[in-house]
Amino acid sequence: MAGSTFGERLKVTTFGESHGESVGAIVEGVTPGVELDEAYIQAQMDRRRPGQSSVTTPRKEYDKIRILSGLFEGRTTGTPLCIMLDNTDMRPSAYDDIKSMYRPGHADFTYEKKYGVRDYRGSGRASGRETAGRVAAGAVARKLLEHRSVKVLAYTTEIGGIRCGTFDPEVIESNVVRACDPAAAERMVKRIEELAAKGDSCGGIVECRISGVLAGLGEPVFDKLDAELARAMLSIGAVKGIEFGAGFQAAAMLGSEHNDQMDANGFQTNHAGGVIGGISTGADIVFRVAVKPTSSISVPQRTIGTDGNEREITTKGRHDPCICPRIVPVIEAMACLVIEDHYKRQAALLD
Amino acid sequence: MAGSTFGERLKVTTFGESHGESVGAIVEGVTPGVELDEAYIQAQMDRRRPGQSSVTTPRKEYDKIRILSGLFEGRTTGTPLCIMLDNTDMRPSAYDDIKSMYRPGHADFTYEKKYGVRDYRGSGRASGRETAGRVAAGAVARKLLEHRSVKVLAYTTEIGGIRCGTFDPEVIESNVVRACDPAAAERMVKRIEELAAKGDSCGGIVECRISGVLAGLGEPVFDKLDAELARAMLSIGAVKGIEFGAGFQAAAMLGSEHNDQMDANGFQTNHAGGVIGGISTGADIVFRVAVKPTSSISVPQRTIGTDGNEREITTKGRHDPCICPRIVPVIEAMACLVIEDHYKRQAALLD
Amino acid sequence: MAGSTFGERLKVTTFGESHGESVGAIVEGVTPGVELDEAYIQAQMDRRRPGQSSVTTPRKEYDKIRILSGLFEGRTTGTPLCIMLDNTDMRPSAYDDIKSMYRPGHADFTYEKKYGVRDYRGSGRASGRETAGRVAAGAVARKLLEHRSVKVLAYTTEIGGIRCGTFDPEVIESNVVRACDPAAAERMVKRIEELAAKGDSCGGIVECRISGVLAGLGEPVFDKLDAELARAMLSIGAVKGIEFGAGFQAAAMLGSEHNDQMDANGFQTNHAGGVIGGISTGADIVFRVAVKPTSSISVPQRTIGTDGNEREITTKGRHDPCICPRIVPVIEAMACLVIEDHYKRQAALLD
Amino acid sequence: MAGSTFGERLKVTTFGESHGESVGAIVEGVTPGVELDEAYIQAQMDRRRPGQSSVTTPRKEYDKIRILSGLFEGRTTGTPLCIMLDNTDMRPSAYDDIKSMYRPGHADFTYEKKYGVRDYRGSGRASGRETAGRVAAGAVARKLLEHRSVKVLAYTTEIGGIRCGTFDPEVIESNVVRACDPAAAERMVKRIEELAAKGDSCGGIVECRISGVLAGLGEPVFDKLDAELARAMLSIGAVKGIEFGAGFQAAAMLGSEHNDQMDANGFQTNHAGGVIGGISTGADIVFRVAVKPTSSISVPQRTIGTDGNEREITTKGRHDPCICPRIVPVIEAMACLVIEDHYKRQAALLD
Repeated sequence: MAGSTFGERLKVTTFGESHGESVGAIVEGVTPGVELDEAYIQAQMDRRRPGQSSVTTPRKEYDKIRILSGLFEGRTTGTPLCIMLDNTDMRPSAYDDIKSMYRPGHADFTYEKKYGVRDYRGSGRASGRETAGRVAAGAVARKLLEHRSVKVLAYTTEIGGIRCGTFDPEVIESNVVRACDPAAAERMVKRIEELAAKGDSCGGIVECRISGVLAGLGEPVFDKLDAELARAMLSIGAVKGIEFGAGFQAAAMLGSEHNDQMDANGFQTNHAGGVIGGISTGADIVFRVAVKPTSSISVPQRTIGTDGNEREITTKGRHDPCICPRIVPVIEAMACLVIEDHYKRQAALLD
Repeated sequence: MAGSTFGERLKVTTFGESHGESVGAIVEGVTPGVELDEAYIQAQMDRRRPGQSSVTTPRKEYDKIRILSGLFEGRTTGTPLCIMLDNTDMRPSAYDDIKSMYRPGHADFTYEKKYGVRDYRGSGRASGRETAGRVAAGAVARKLLEHRSVKVLAYTTEIGGIRCGTFDPEVIESNVVRACDPAAAERMVKRIEELAAKGDSCGGIVECRISGVLAGLGEPVFDKLDAELARAMLSIGAVKGIEFGAGFQAAAMLGSEHNDQMDANGFQTNHAGGVIGGISTGADIVFRVAVKPTSSISVPQRTIGTDGNEREITTKGRHDPCICPRIVPVIEAMACLVIEDHYKRQAALLD
Repeated sequence: MAGSTFGERLKVTTFGESHGESVGAIVEGVTPGVELDEAYIQAQMDRRRPGQSSVTTPRKEYDKIRILSGLFEGRTTGTPLCIMLDNTDMRPSAYDDIKSMYRPGHADFTYEKKYGVRDYRGSGRASGRETAGRVAAGAVARKLLEHRSVKVLAYTTEIGGIRCGTFDPEVIESNVVRACDPAAAERMVKRIEELAAKGDSCGGIVECRISGVLAGLGEPVFDKLDAELARAMLSIGAVKGIEFGAGFQAAAMLGSEHNDQMDANGFQTNHAGGVIGGISTGADIVFRVAVKPTSSISVPQRTIGTDGNEREITTKGRHDPCICPRIVPVIEAMACLVIEDHYKRQAALLD
Repeated sequence: MAGSTFGERLKVTTFGESHGESVGAIVEGVTPGVELDEAYIQAQMDRRRPGQSSVTTPRKEYDKIRILSGLFEGRTTGTPLCIMLDNTDMRPSAYDDIKSMYRPGHADFTYEKKYGVRDYRGSGRASGRETAGRVAAGAVARKLLEHRSVKVLAYTTEIGGIRCGTFDPEVIESNVVRACDPAAAERMVKRIEELAAKGDSCGGIVECRISGVLAGLGEPVFDKLDAELARAMLSIGAVKGIEFGAGFQAAAMLGSEHNDQMDANGFQTNHAGGVIGGISTGADIVFRVAVKPTSSISVPQRTIGTDGNEREITTKGRHDPCICPRIVPVIEAMACLVIEDHYKRQAALLD
């Protein structure tokens, strides 16, 4: 589908680039008559905004959204919702240094291979900024899921090898790494600051838990719910893996251990992560996403120039030392979009 | 897209169920004029066929395929290729025991939640047999990729906690677990036989390597190449996770470690697994898939009946103790379909 | 979408060719739990079958369908329905004469231009026989529409310049041209027989009326209900035009004449043909389809050979002198598929 | 696909409403490296702009477009092109009179039935203004088609019963009704002015001719080229029918008359309108579109209010007495989008 569209019954098309004028999203198939306002969406955007802390980018994007269509007298009309953000903090000159080189880990090289054009202005469509449109669209889906009593919650479980040992949903928004364990959060922040001082970066793992989901969502065989969530998450920049439930641990388990047995109260365990046979079971959907370390580091690296010659590169500009805190709301947004889309597909099947 | 269709320019629709008359696949968008015959596809089907060894199901499916359309005088016509297999080894009665219970780890419960119908005949569309259509379609894609000098190779790297220490592509088809290390293979077989004797099962990890791929494939943002491969693999039954390149290990790496630096010969490392920014780099695409242990075990388990009462269940019938060997050709098939589809999409972009 | 798939929530994929082994259809998104059997579908197939009368092809295709999947104990399971027909009356040798020439009005030339392959065996995918799969799938949709009290009725209104003057739904199936006026039908049959004796053919117009449709179906802007019906009908071979309501007559009307005014009972007129702004109004949906004269005639014609030299061609074989009677059930089938798909899409929107 | 997206390899998503802030389009799959600038697109937009003549709406929309992404140094990047227009001439109050009534011929009634919301502000998504996004996107496709030497030309052939007798492409842009016959144009303008003075409107027929098209475009069976063009045109507001080549006249022709015979120079006639078997023949593609008379007339009409009571309605506001002149560039735009999309699909097939 040419890459800018996602979903089928609840469908989002995102547009815009890092250094273009605007970024945004069009959301189609939104249930009519639902109360919605810009403030609700803005709240999700604000979670994404950099410049919040010492561990995120100082670039001041003022992500103020405007809803251009699809609302009337405070309620959705059912016609497409168009949400726009203006890019207010663009400094293309900050990238001039590297216009003739391929930054390691970035999509510079691959974009040029694909399109035959070297557009060096801050990654363009490959920029993390593109996710702003997704978060806006995801907020709309989140609103619709509220009506279904579905909750979507993502949080950091690991950064730089430091793992959360406890889980407390209340602390997630209170620490800048959005970890679920406050003690681990402190150690994570310290580690990130150390690395940032050295001009380096680190990766992490983000877990997402979706609760209250109806059993029966997902469309075997190719639109299985976990397959669709996998595509959604892998489409987010910096994501290098996903696992459901026991995930890669399942590889070392026995069938007698991994199978989720049932009793009169439902599933006794949830190694399946809430999806069996590609369809939701009614138990919490749980998955974890592997986030690679930020590619933009100021540590000198070896690369080649657009002329093919070997070079040393030191990336300047303003970059997150760890992407996890900022990716949390993006993961939630994509999860909201997938789940709401599948509720609607299920309604169509049964009608 | 309602679940039975995959791909866009090279597109496959699979049909059929475990205990229906036939299973098959329709492949559209096949390049015309390519030499192809039933024997080529049959060779891939034979790799999938159970009853090959002590570690796979004794159910004798004779997967003899027929090509109903799309070929003329030994070459593809460009019109849709329809490939059919007849189910010759159906024994629905073998399932009568469990028709009133939900087998743990199986899609019985979720299918009934979704469709409101309890069709107990060997999992129907959830059956591993559905993958026969995929392997047939994947064979067509593999033939097209041969013309592009692209090779797709999958192999077991871990079963039951036992890991391959070496990699030799030549041994993969010579051992029944399709492992890339013969010594590890022997230990894996022994482990599987032990577990089978106890009526239990184990999981594993399968790695896939795609070499010779053109740089530039993939369509950001939502049809990124890794996102599409992720969806493809997670759509295969028993798969619970996927990771690219360093994958979940990247979470613990520094940017200075994970970034693949470049020199005049290309990429110095391949932590990215051949995909950066959702686009192929030209380096081998490498990913690993987590395979859960087979759910059908004869160890007694706790479950509930369709009447909601708690029960003990012992699954009879004929089942693979470990799915990895059989999933290898399915993973290759899906990889072939994704890569060939994206070659065609790239051709469309540049035309 | 590569051409073999139609619809989104109720989705059909057809396969097979005129002289391949089988033709068929896969229908996905079928509401589970609906009573359905082969006899119901067979009844629609029988309406399509040639050899019924003096005005249709004597080729005896015995369109006996088999349902391979998607049914259990007499009801739909919600999983894909696969319907197969075997081609029992193939005589490829009847086409040997014309393998080196392009038959005027046929797709021989265009298929060779598209695919680079000259597959002369009775038109392959361009054959009217491909529509068998559509009629089978359309029967499933018709069953679902019965539950919604929607009726789809098509009938010939004009053949060879002879027009129906009256409309009586009861006579449609009683005359071999499926005209809605018995007197006109007699004259039409006579005209067709005259032309057949001369080795020529004639065209006609078929009207379709869909009643009982919910107001509100259709998805502006690109999936408007009339746009989707137009695509559906123009995809049927031999169709060269479509018009809704007053259609081309509207071009000569005034706004004060064409606008359908309303009173307490609803719409006073229906010049719009039941669709305004791309959405159903609740009034009958009415459209007419232009059917070209059969291209296969035995009157000598000028053409070129595959070698580029000018030739005279006389088509032998067994062909319908007028396609209208056989196209009636195909038009109904496509209408059923579109309407049922849009009911489901509307259910998804409102959920 | 939820209605706002069109095309597959060249894909457009339009957004915005009549009285929202902006309207626009996102075009994906654009060939990279092609020279393009805002002026080229603006030229097409200016053709669409009302306020040009005595026969079009005096509403002054200043359709100045901005390209937000997808261009770099005057060339396409291959990443999505986002084109925006600002609505500068919105006067929602002009519609206050009719907010409690359904205007005959308009989508007021059907939109309320579909969405359950009565959004009276100038038709919203049903407004002709939505087509601005299509014309912008169509301009991009036109540029790409220039590189293929394909020309797309539409013109009025009939208005209010007055028909063009001659065809001269040079005069089309010189008369305000965009007719191909200057004498007929004069009579048409006079007729329109008469009707406008009475507060009424009239319909017409627009013909479109696409020349220089490669033979072989179109994807049987459901994505046949004529089926896709039909869907494209019927998706334009006010269109009530389409016919290809001889169209509805074919219904009264004999096979010996309608078949396009061939000689060494190609097709001797073109009754097929350039498409046979759903695939382009290489001859000009010719089709005609039926345009209904404008629904907004100030002649009093009978309707019902949103309360169900019968009312008399007199529509004020500023409306085109005949839509044909303004629809010509929209028809060309949609034709460009379909043809370019199919060129790309054909490239994918053969790669």
